[in-house]
Amino acid sequence: MTAPLRRSEFRLIAEVFAPLAADCDLAFHLQDDAAVLRPEPNQDIVVTTDCLVGGVHFLEDGDPALIGRKALRVNLSDLAAMGARATSYVLAVALPPSVDDAWLDAFAAGLQSDRDEFVLPLIGGDVVATSGPLTLTVTAFGVVPAGRALRRNGAQPGDSVYVSGSIGDAALGLKVLDGKLDGLGPQAAAYLTDRYWLPRPRLVLGQRLIDLASAAMDVSDGLVADLGHICETSGVAATLDASRAPLSDAARAALACAPEFDAMVLTGGDDYELVFTVAPRNEATIDALAADLKLTLTRIGETAIGAGVKVVDEAGKPVEVATPGYIHF
Amino acid sequence: MTAPLRRSEFRLIAEVFAPLAADCDLAFHLQDDAAVLRPEPNQDIVVTTDCLVGGVHFLEDGDPALIGRKALRVNLSDLAAMGARATSYVLAVALPPSVDDAWLDAFAAGLQSDRDEFVLPLIGGDVVATSGPLTLTVTAFGVVPAGRALRRNGAQPGDSVYVSGSIGDAALGLKVLDGKLDGLGPQAAAYLTDRYWLPRPRLVLGQRLIDLASAAMDVSDGLVADLGHICETSGVAATLDASRAPLSDAARAALACAPEFDAMVLTGGDDYELVFTVAPRNEATIDALAADLKLTLTRIGETAIGAGVKVVDEAGKPVEVATPGYIHF
Repeated sequence: MTAPLRRSEFRLIAEVFAPLAADCDLAFHLQDDAAVLRPEPNQDIVVTTDCLVGGVHFLEDGDPALIGRKALRVNLSDLAAMGARATSYVLAVALPPSVDDAWLDAFAAGLQSDRDEFVLPLIGGDVVATSGPLTLTVTAFGVVPAGRALRRNGAQPGDSVYVSGSIGDAALGLKVLDGKLDGLGPQAAAYLTDRYWLPRPRLVLGQRLIDLASAAMDVSDGLVADLGHICETSGVAATLDASRAPLSDAARAALACAPEFDAMVLTGGDDYELVFTVAPRNEATIDALAADLKLTLTRIGETAIGAGVKVVDEAGKPVEVATPGYIHF
Repeated sequence: MTAPLRRSEFRLIAEVFAPLAADCDLAFHLQDDAAVLRPEPNQDIVVTTDCLVGGVHFLEDGDPALIGRKALRVNLSDLAAMGARATSYVLAVALPPSVDDAWLDAFAAGLQSDRDEFVLPLIGGDVVATSGPLTLTVTAFGVVPAGRALRRNGAQPGDSVYVSGSIGDAALGLKVLDGKLDGLGPQAAAYLTDRYWLPRPRLVLGQRLIDLASAAMDVSDGLVADLGHICETSGVAATLDASRAPLSDAARAALACAPEFDAMVLTGGDDYELVFTVAPRNEATIDALAADLKLTLTRIGETAIGAGVKVVDEAGKPVEVATPGYIHF
C-alpha cells in the first residue's frame, strides 16, 4: 500500500480551505451545510459562475497558484462587467488522482493572495474526486446599488464603443507558452504569459461605469465576438476600427515577430478587459475617468442602426475576420 | 466530416437553458454576464454548492432527467438543512463529447419538472467542454429570516436526536442498480432505486425547524458520519440506537434478502433526510409537526457531554461500525 497523496476530505477543508474563510462570520468556518449572504438595504447581489477545465481553459501543468487565481479572476471579471463590487465566492473542486497535497497548498496560497488583494473571502464549497481533468467551478458574489447593474442590452445607435487596457496579450501569451513565438525577447514574453495567467478584473472601472455606460461586458471570448453579444442583446450594429485596437508594447513586438497572429488580437480570448458603449456626450467623462484610474480607455468604434459587428481598417475598408472569437464547441 | 452531436454553445443556452430561466426578471434571459439576487428586507440569502461527477456521484448511463434533478436536489437538501426556502440556482455543466442534443433535452426536461415542483428558476450558468466525465456543479440559493438559519453547532448535551423519513433506501437502491440485490421483488426494487435517483429535499421540514431544532444537517454521507459532524461542531457526544433507525418496507425486504447490508443502513450515503437535535421539552412539538407534515420523524438517540457517536443496539450494547459514512477520498 502506498501513502495517500492527499489529506482526507475533512482535513483538506479544515487545513487548506477554511483559512480562506477566516474572519468571515457568515461562512461559519465552512462547517455548515451552506453559507449566508446579507446585503445592505438597497443593494442587489450579483452572482456569476464559471467552470474551468484543465487542458481546455488552462494548462494543466501550470503553476497551481495561478490556476486558482485565474479561476477566481475570470468570475470577478463578470462581476466587473455588471458594475459590482466583489464580496465573496464559493468554490467546487473536482480533483484528479494526480493532484497532491503540495499542489493544493500552492493552489490555496494563490487564492489567499487574491483574498488579500480583493478582500474576498471564500464562504463555501465542495471538494470531490474525478477520473477526468481538474475542474474548478467558482460562483462569485458582488453587490450593486439595487436595480443599477450594468447590462449588455442598453446600447443605442450612435454610441461610442470603448475597450479598457490592451487587448490580444493573453492570446499571444498562450502562443508563447505553446512555443510558437520563439523570436520574442524574454521581457515581452514574460509580460504576455503573465497576461494569460493573471487576468486583471476591471472591478473599479465597472463600478465607475454605472449610470455612465449604456452597455458593458467583459472580453473573454474575443473582442469581436463579445462586442457582437452587446450588439445582439441591444439590437444595434457596431463598426470596430482595427487600427485603433489598443496594443501593449509586448503585443506589438510579438506581432512584429509573427504577423500571422495579427487577426488574433481582435478575436483571441482571455483578455478580461471591459468593452462598453457610451453616449457621445459622455466621452469627456470617459477621458477624465481614464486619467483618474490611470487605465487606458480607447474609443475603438461606434454603434449604428442594424445588426452585427463590421471590422474596418484605418481607411474604413472592411477587414475579413474568419472567426470572431473562441468557439467552446 | 460528421455532423456535430450538439448545438453550438449559444443555441444550447438559448434553446435548452434559457427556458429554465423564463419569467425570472433577474436572470436577464441568461444573456448578461451575471444575474441578480434581491432578498426582501430582513432576509438572509443562503448559498450552497455541490459538484457531481459522472461515475462517482451518479451512474453515467442513468436517465438524464434524473441526473439533472439529482444534481439540483442534493443542493436543495443543503438549503433544507439550513431552514431555507429555495429561490433559484445557477448551473455549471462540463460536457464530455458523448453527450448529445437528445441527452441535453432530456436533462433540461428533468430540471424543468423540478422548476415547476419547487418554483425554482435557473438564473445563470456556464457550459463548457471536458475530456473527462460529465461534471455538474449547482449553486443553489434560498432565503431565511435574517440571522435565523439552522446551524450544526447548537446541540446541547441531553438533546434528543431525530431523523426524518426513512434511511438506507438510497444505498440499498444503488445495490439494486449494481445487480447485488437479485432476490428482491420488483416493487421494492423500484422503490429503492427511485430513492437513489430522486432525493426528496426536506425543505418544508427545515423551515419549520427554525427556532425548534438546536442543530440540523442533511444526511448525505451516512447517518453516523453526519450525526458525527453535528457532534463535532456542537462539542457534544451522541448515542444512536440502531434498532430505532426508521426503515422503509422495501429496505426491510432488501435486508431480509441480503442481511450483509445491514450496517449500510446507518452508514450508506444519499439519504438526503434531515438529522436534527431538539431539547427534550420540544418533543411533543416534533410529534405534532410530524403529524402536520405527514412525515415520519423518529427519535433515534440523544446527545451527552463528550465527543463522538456511539451506536448501540436495543439493549444498549455497543454495535461495531467499521466506516461511519462515505469516504470521498
